[in-house]
Amino acid sequence: MNNKIRKAERLAFITKALVENTSKIYTLNYFSEQLDSAKSTLSEDVDLISKLFKAMELGEIRSISGANGGIQYVPVLSREQIEKEQLSLCKELMDPKRIITGGYLYMNDIFYNPEALKKIAKILATHFVDCEIDYVATIETKGIPLATVLAELMNKPIIVVRKSARLTEGPTIQMNYLAGSTKTIKTMALPIRALERGSRVLFVDDFMKAGGTAKGVIDLLKEYQVTVAGVGVVMSTKEPVKKLVEDYYSIIELEDIDEETGEIKIYPKKANN
Amino acid sequence: MNNKIRKAERLAFITKALVENTSKIYTLNYFSEQLDSAKSTLSEDVDLISKLFKAMELGEIRSISGANGGIQYVPVLSREQIEKEQLSLCKELMDPKRIITGGYLYMNDIFYNPEALKKIAKILATHFVDCEIDYVATIETKGIPLATVLAELMNKPIIVVRKSARLTEGPTIQMNYLAGSTKTIKTMALPIRALERGSRVLFVDDFMKAGGTAKGVIDLLKEYQVTVAGVGVVMSTKEPVKKLVEDYYSIIELEDIDEETGEIKIYPKKANN
Repeated sequence: MNNKIRKAERLAFITKALVENTSKIYTLNYFSEQLDSAKSTLSEDVDLISKLFKAMELGEIRSISGANGGIQYVPVLSREQIEKEQLSLCKELMDPKRIITGGYLYMNDIFYNPEALKKIAKILATHFVDCEIDYVATIETKGIPLATVLAELMNKPIIVVRKSARLTEGPTIQMNYLAGSTKTIKTMALPIRALERGSRVLFVDDFMKAGGTAKGVIDLLKEYQVTVAGVGVVMSTKEPVKKLVEDYYSIIELEDIDEETGEIKIYPKKANN
Repeated sequence: MNNKIRKAERLAFITKALVENTSKIYTLNYFSEQLDSAKSTLSEDVDLISKLFKAMELGEIRSISGANGGIQYVPVLSREQIEKEQLSLCKELMDPKRIITGGYLYMNDIFYNPEALKKIAKILATHFVDCEIDYVATIETKGIPLATVLAELMNKPIIVVRKSARLTEGPTIQMNYLAGSTKTIKTMALPIRALERGSRVLFVDDFMKAGGTAKGVIDLLKEYQVTVAGVGVVMSTKEPVKKLVEDYYSIIELEDIDEETGEIKIYPKKANN
């Protein structure tokens, strides 16, 4: 098959590789071997894919120069695509059926749905695309599927901060912290092997109220001599206005849940960093 | 752009959609609208992609007939690809540096790495491809990234069984169970809203020893009137030979970890169902 492969099939093959392993850098040599085609031909093919993706707003094909260079697919959204997703997420969450006794909002159907997660994760991937991170970190449990999908999009490993040390994970740094909204003392733990010193970490979570958990994770990560390159959450609350972490990106903002009337107020949040 | 779109670009566009949302069913009408092309032309395009994927063992393009029909990309592996992955996974895990005091094996770098997870999840997706499941279930915490990637490949929502009920998840069924290997009583919980009655669930986890956790989840799921359509784990132990669940699929088998000599014995496991 290889020596008869035509342009259309080359484009399908290259697109398949780039989209399947998002953000992974492929060399033209790799495609040249797989498709038995000249690099000059493949370079034209990649240009064609790149132009198509740009014209149809399907994300970016990027060229990375240098010794470890090559091409990668980066699933960034346009500003309009982000605004549309923000609105559709708000609309979906403002359904009164979501209200749980105690004034909480049921959101598992979104945070546990791969297609919905991918849309959300793409917004975060777009915002943090140039952060040059080494890991996507989260704390158990609800944020893990989101962190997984985002880590896939960014092609980086995940770090999961646990609520206590585990026998099966070896030596661990454990830390107590004050959960911001309830003022209770909680514990978090991270195995020493989980990440390399000197690396850059993006912390993500499903929800932020006072920011105590995010602050705790940032403090814990300091023990590993890493840089927290960004904090991203899906939904933050309007109150308290002053969070325990200063710099964070939130996709949408929860203003109020009225258990009695069933009214829920959620708005797209503007990025201020 | 749309009215000048050429064959090569149509193939790239269709491939991008199919591979990005694995197992999602796309109608030819959708592509016809997006690409402003006749369905007969697109049908030929899909045939071409299908043949290419088959010839290069990149997975299957399937046609689904009927009212909700269309085409989908199913990332199944060939028998040789599976055997190769099994061996490479065994080799990677038999590194003595992985041994943790107590005779455990450090595996987070694999279970928290998107590219490694995708390879593992594809083996499970291939094994369970015709199970017609509605959900991919797991229990917190370590199996969640695996369940997420598998759920993405199969385009189904995730169910995460918790170790205790949560305020934010509403009414929950909670159950005590006997952890098979340690004979201790543990708790698991699942929100009532988490899944629809009468559905089919695939349970996956990173590791199985006696099978107590898997049996617990199966028992808990019975309360929701669902069918457990399959149980899949990445690694099971050779001992005890008789597990608490009868029917399960395991990718590799752990025979022994010798803390003193650093010798680890792990083998590919043959499917017997």
